[in-house]
Amino acid sequence: MINHKLLLSYDGSAYHGFQRQKNALSIQEIIEKALGKLYGKGIKVEGASRTDAGVHARGQVINFFAPAHIPLERLPFALNSILPPDVVAYEASGADYNFNSRKNARGKRYIYIIDNENFPDVFKRNYSWHVASKLDVSAMKEAAEYLLGRHDFKSFQSAGSSVANTVRTLYKVDIIEEGCFLFFSFEGDGFLYKMIRAITGTLVEIGLGKKETEEMRKILHSKDRSKAGKTAPACGLCLEKVFY
Amino acid sequence: MINHKLLLSYDGSAYHGFQRQKNALSIQEIIEKALGKLYGKGIKVEGASRTDAGVHARGQVINFFAPAHIPLERLPFALNSILPPDVVAYEASGADYNFNSRKNARGKRYIYIIDNENFPDVFKRNYSWHVASKLDVSAMKEAAEYLLGRHDFKSFQSAGSSVANTVRTLYKVDIIEEGCFLFFSFEGDGFLYKMIRAITGTLVEIGLGKKETEEMRKILHSKDRSKAGKTAPACGLCLEKVFY
Repeated sequence: MINHKLLLSYDGSAYHGFQRQKNALSIQEIIEKALGKLYGKGIKVEGASRTDAGVHARGQVINFFAPAHIPLERLPFALNSILPPDVVAYEASGADYNFNSRKNARGKRYIYIIDNENFPDVFKRNYSWHVASKLDVSAMKEAAEYLLGRHDFKSFQSAGSSVANTVRTLYKVDIIEEGCFLFFSFEGDGFLYKMIRAITGTLVEIGLGKKETEEMRKILHSKDRSKAGKTAPACGLCLEKVFY
Repeated sequence: MINHKLLLSYDGSAYHGFQRQKNALSIQEIIEKALGKLYGKGIKVEGASRTDAGVHARGQVINFFAPAHIPLERLPFALNSILPPDVVAYEASGADYNFNSRKNARGKRYIYIIDNENFPDVFKRNYSWHVASKLDVSAMKEAAEYLLGRHDFKSFQSAGSSVANTVRTLYKVDIIEEGCFLFFSFEGDGFLYKMIRAITGTLVEIGLGKKETEEMRKILHSKDRSKAGKTAPACGLCLEKVFY
């Protein structure tokens, strides 16, 4: 048995998130079933990020132990011939016996896409949040600055979660305009449950002029979820890269 | 009653083409039903292009006669609140009484997208044709040159069609590389049934080295559909613009 590291991209629209659940289809279940066909039943995968229901990935990293009989360069092709078209494996490598895709992740980059045009781009409707009113990008960039560094991000953690330590480090927040699309790129050592969507929702309220730029600092310090903006829709979010 | 001109974009994946049919859902039916809710039943629309099953549009143009009581600038918003999310109306204007979106079209631009990477981009899977083997772009560009101008395109007309006059003028064929994507842009005064997909299928066979570049000229002159390549999949094709 060797430890396999595998990169995945997926359209999360049809799935109830990465993690296996009862009564709802997950990416993990889809992958474990496909691996079962290649190696026999019972293979368990670990994913670097437990992406939420409806959230996408371009660079999810999983690892799993399996016999070495399928050459690594053939493994993505073999898997893709079994996987549905909305899940694509694209890079396999061997990993140390102790490598764990989730526990060893040093950081992650997520991108949130906003379609900021009067009418939605029909081809991006499942991969972006359509906000028809023009957003003030410089106000959002200014507000995002307050979030950089090591903070207690409790204000941006969804009510459903009960993680003890809510301190995280945000290395980078970039907001890039490309035509009518806005790309919010977040890089950090880890993210709380729905944290990026809560931050994006808050940034949008600032971009719409519903909240002042400096309110971002107050919200962060309040450690009170009710002070932040609404959670942005899942479909705009994508896990881009995991850093080790 | 005034003549309305309306621009539409749609994801054709779930539809059996633009034109109304029995027992299969069309874009025309979806639009006419939505207009029925705004103006009352019985409104008939004419579309500039009868896009095929699975083919998309960014710039479909329709026209229809209806009372003037909905302001033109509000019409797209009113329609989009009724239409499903895969069909989006985005520009309405008043047209001459004699304007007919199909008959008055002077030309059209279609874009065919190929995803030419080892593994498919999961977010483009419904809007491109995934060809894993590397294509020879310069060979395809050279072959496309033979098609420019006024020709009898019978060799590229699908067997199902019985149009009497198969002469068309192709003004422009551009093949643009952007990362791993190839954009084939076709501009002409009109296109035969499945003509662009037959041309694209033939270009891909040339790009794969299965056919010589000069064969394109011979295929064109043969007026024999069986000499051309296979019809490329519908999902890669999009009606970009209609010229008047």
